[in-house]
Amino acid sequence: MTDLVTPSFETRIPEGDERARDVCTRCGFIAYENPKIVVGSVVRAGDKVLLCRRAIDPQSGFWTLPAGFMELNETPEQGAAREAYEEARASIEIHDLLAIYTIPRISQVQLIYRATLKGGFAPGPESLEVDLFSPDDIPRDRIAFPSVHWALDQEARWRRGEAVGPFMNPVEGL
Amino acid sequence: MTDLVTPSFETRIPEGDERARDVCTRCGFIAYENPKIVVGSVVRAGDKVLLCRRAIDPQSGFWTLPAGFMELNETPEQGAAREAYEEARASIEIHDLLAIYTIPRISQVQLIYRATLKGGFAPGPESLEVDLFSPDDIPRDRIAFPSVHWALDQEARWRRGEAVGPFMNPVEGL
Repeated sequence: MTDLVTPSFETRIPEGDERARDVCTRCGFIAYENPKIVVGSVVRAGDKVLLCRRAIDPQSGFWTLPAGFMELNETPEQGAAREAYEEARASIEIHDLLAIYTIPRISQVQLIYRATLKGGFAPGPESLEVDLFSPDDIPRDRIAFPSVHWALDQEARWRRGEAVGPFMNPVEGL
Repeated sequence: MTDLVTPSFETRIPEGDERARDVCTRCGFIAYENPKIVVGSVVRAGDKVLLCRRAIDPQSGFWTLPAGFMELNETPEQGAAREAYEEARASIEIHDLLAIYTIPRISQVQLIYRATLKGGFAPGPESLEVDLFSPDDIPRDRIAFPSVHWALDQEARWRRGEAVGPFMNPVEGL
């Protein structure tokens, strides 16, 4: 029976479909894989922004925005607020949609909001530490993902009145 | 062996997770379900828009935009163009992001673009017919989904210079 605890998939085109999917050879389950939505926010407290140092891979030890996979039956805004609580124990007020980033290599669409911090913060289980950073103190050489740079830069431009969002990927072909 | 062709899932919280997921009792596969992304477009040919009459459920027989589920490893724009070809055999040029709609009841995020038609069109396998409609001829009482109304109305407002997108759901709590 030991082999029954490991999934066993073959890749084939199911009847009526046009694309190859992973189909379980044991139970016939078709694992439709779709792009995933990441929801997150640039959280302001005055001129400072809230960043979390990741306690998990990928990019453990590097700094990121509070963000994560959108769950079923929530709005993106609710998901972004949930992630701020899970990763930074932060209660936030969500304002505008800051940006939509698409990263086809990893089949990800990111919806990043502008938000403000209401009250305190503390690391959640997926964060080593959480802190507020002034613009000049952002640890730019220890940022976890390119889209974190994009969001911080675009949010700062919007804040300075140089441009209005929502923004998209600043560079093609990541 | 007959029972092995049907998936058998139980709902439980996997180790290290916080939410109940469907786990196959036969092979241990965890079916993480995430919100799905629909990509589509309002396709213009002069003052007319392209609509498709659905050949499949839900809402078979009703009119809709060319739109469908985003696939892995494509950008939303590529997905919207692919759907225009699959449903309306239409080659399109994508312009701006028209709207982001979120429908948490069915865990869907829709990314709808503004586009123009390049060349002809014909029904694909999921469409009964495809046609171009002037603003006054749009079959408003035979539209498949509320978000199709939203997109047509918002695209017309943008076109008339009354507002600039990207838009969001016009009404809360669908």
